[in-house]
Amino acid sequence: MRNKLTIVKVGGGIINDKIILNQFLKDFSKIEGMKLLVHGGGLVASDNLNKLGIDAKLINGRRITDGKTLDVIIMTYAGLLNKNIVAKLQKYNCNTIGLSGVDCNLIRAKKRVINEIDYGFVGDIEEVNVDIIKILLNSNITPVVCSLSHDGQGQILNTNADSITSVVSIALSKEFDVTLKYCFDKPGLLIDQNDESSIKKYIRLSEYKDLINKNIITDGMIPKIENCFSALEKGVENVFIGNHNIINEENNCTKLTLE
Amino acid sequence: MRNKLTIVKVGGGIINDKIILNQFLKDFSKIEGMKLLVHGGGLVASDNLNKLGIDAKLINGRRITDGKTLDVIIMTYAGLLNKNIVAKLQKYNCNTIGLSGVDCNLIRAKKRVINEIDYGFVGDIEEVNVDIIKILLNSNITPVVCSLSHDGQGQILNTNADSITSVVSIALSKEFDVTLKYCFDKPGLLIDQNDESSIKKYIRLSEYKDLINKNIITDGMIPKIENCFSALEKGVENVFIGNHNIINEENNCTKLTLE
Repeated sequence: MRNKLTIVKVGGGIINDKIILNQFLKDFSKIEGMKLLVHGGGLVASDNLNKLGIDAKLINGRRITDGKTLDVIIMTYAGLLNKNIVAKLQKYNCNTIGLSGVDCNLIRAKKRVINEIDYGFVGDIEEVNVDIIKILLNSNITPVVCSLSHDGQGQILNTNADSITSVVSIALSKEFDVTLKYCFDKPGLLIDQNDESSIKKYIRLSEYKDLINKNIITDGMIPKIENCFSALEKGVENVFIGNHNIINEENNCTKLTLE
Repeated sequence: MRNKLTIVKVGGGIINDKIILNQFLKDFSKIEGMKLLVHGGGLVASDNLNKLGIDAKLINGRRITDGKTLDVIIMTYAGLLNKNIVAKLQKYNCNTIGLSGVDCNLIRAKKRVINEIDYGFVGDIEEVNVDIIKILLNSNITPVVCSLSHDGQGQILNTNADSITSVVSIALSKEFDVTLKYCFDKPGLLIDQNDESSIKKYIRLSEYKDLINKNIITDGMIPKIENCFSALEKGVENVFIGNHNIINEENNCTKLTLE
């Protein structure tokens, strides 16, 4: 029998709010069975860059990661955020370990090729090696993964947390029944961005393009939803998107389905 | 049969020099059998504090760790240094994982009691739980441990790397034949601090106090040597102190012996 595994991705908005983050981690710690958390932390990184007098450079919402920026990203994601999340979850009796894509060669990536824009030390994922995750889960240890990868030649690379969540979920779906929950700042997919009651409780793959044409799924959401459908198509059992309440309320968020 | 385990502690001086660090990590990657690395990084942390305009406060060589300082310590040790060391060792085909004392409750500590001096968020080690280390070593994974602990209530604490090395080595000596190598900026214990040929190749516990009286072992070295003898007395098989060449040259450093 395959074990169930719940994978949760938590984004910058929640991480940046200490009270909400605390409640979120308390809820996460209560998830029964095997679980794994992936986090970003772009807002905290921007704040640290600002304190160091380094300009945060973003093009179309994507960060340009030069060498100095990369150092701050590594310090923020793998250091400050990852270890504080692990410490909080230990307090809630959830035996966690902090990981990055560098550890045990979890996420191997390639530095993004320079076309029109030089994104700097940004990684496009090439290979995922979930052996360490399986060892940990089978030892009742909950991994907390931050969004860094490496190129295998000693270079750490800044890597999109949604993409990491998706590839790790797909790789683990070979051995576990994976339920994936993406938490962001909205309770789900809204038809009217200003009205939380306009939440769409289900979205089928076939509706997806239609919703883009109708401008209901826009810029930042498109890669997110694409990652979700990709996960579903490649073996992940269930995918939900919603806000920090998603852990407790599967009925008050958006469920993605292939049909 | 018990497995052999080599534990190496690397200090700030080596970590601060990229060329020496690189050679050191290359040498470390070639150690045969099970191994584990513990690192500090106080000099890099001081540099980061300086960049952020936070005064590094040291009393008798010991850091006063207020809240802002702690954040920088966590970012530097668990983020920048730990993940770059792991990435470099992956390059040298050494399958490593970065850990702190927070992960899997490895090092539980108590915030230092305020007597004359308030050291802030500094931890005195209470309990070490090496289960995760055993799981990793038995899976052919090399742990790289940075010097942070936690209080079990969600608070991360800055903790002396020599002390962490000592307690982790002692705990692991219950199941492994542990050889411990402390690397610092001298080739070993020198009779004359200005003459590297005056190296003392062996030091017996009974000589230790005599050497303190003769001012050959002074301030900063006293707790270091004390940690070494404590490790030997409590089950560690061999203890050496030396510089970054210690991995290759057991004959050109100082070996500590109980008799």
